[in-house]
Amino acid sequence: MEQSGSFVYLIKHLEMGLRPRFIEACAQGGMTYAQYTALTVLRHRPGITSSELARRSFVRAQSMAATVDPLLESGFVRREQDPAHARRMLLFLTPQGERKIDELSPSIDSLEELLLGDLDAEERKQFAGFLRRCRHAMDGADYRPPAP
Amino acid sequence: MEQSGSFVYLIKHLEMGLRPRFIEACAQGGMTYAQYTALTVLRHRPGITSSELARRSFVRAQSMAATVDPLLESGFVRREQDPAHARRMLLFLTPQGERKIDELSPSIDSLEELLLGDLDAEERKQFAGFLRRCRHAMDGADYRPPAP
Repeated sequence: MEQSGSFVYLIKHLEMGLRPRFIEACAQGGMTYAQYTALTVLRHRPGITSSELARRSFVRAQSMAATVDPLLESGFVRREQDPAHARRMLLFLTPQGERKIDELSPSIDSLEELLLGDLDAEERKQFAGFLRRCRHAMDGADYRPPAP
Repeated sequence: MEQSGSFVYLIKHLEMGLRPRFIEACAQGGMTYAQYTALTVLRHRPGITSSELARRSFVRAQSMAATVDPLLESGFVRREQDPAHARRMLLFLTPQGERKIDELSPSIDSLEELLLGDLDAEERKQFAGFLRRCRHAMDGADYRPPAP
């Protein structure tokens, strides 16, 4: 049996250790953390809105413009009118955006290798599965802490 | 094969989802996130210094006093002179501090249950093992991102 809070603590610890290294890896490619994350989210989910992108990039909806505008200007992202809702704009990665992600991949891969170096291929697969199942469980939950 | 950055992203996603819920669970017990973390760290590592506690509680050394002073005043933590270095103070959990952690355990357990709800006992054990091995790999690494 794990101690109370062990998982919360371990996840926090990993996130805190990864953050500065991830920021540095992104900066090497001239990107902020939020910009790189936005590009990778758009690769997986082309045609989402800015507010959906904000949520998935861990950025406030109000500050998403500051993240996306430079990406639009640099030609990494393009905007398109939603055919179903004329006033809604959808975002897509451009071929230049794809190349930017590929350019950064070696840095991100080496950061992940640092994290996962002790796990073999089968264990990495299991670990990714556990992380995803936790994400789904958490995202689907309408959590209220119990009254003390 | 996982996409570049999948693990970084998944860990970030879990941390971002857990954070507000963890803050809320701590607040129910009259604690800040940092204070509760400090108590749990001291339970595992009695007799560490304030700067070591800061590092392990994800708080800057300079702002640790703001976290620890209320814990000292409330009697959850006590200070003791290091027998080996007269000018160094070591921190310990008090019995009241132990009780405070126990009082908060149901809230934290239910938060972890939300995260782990889809994993059985054996899978949780494996998952904790993977998280710990990643932490050790990361903490032991002298990482430099490769030149782009």
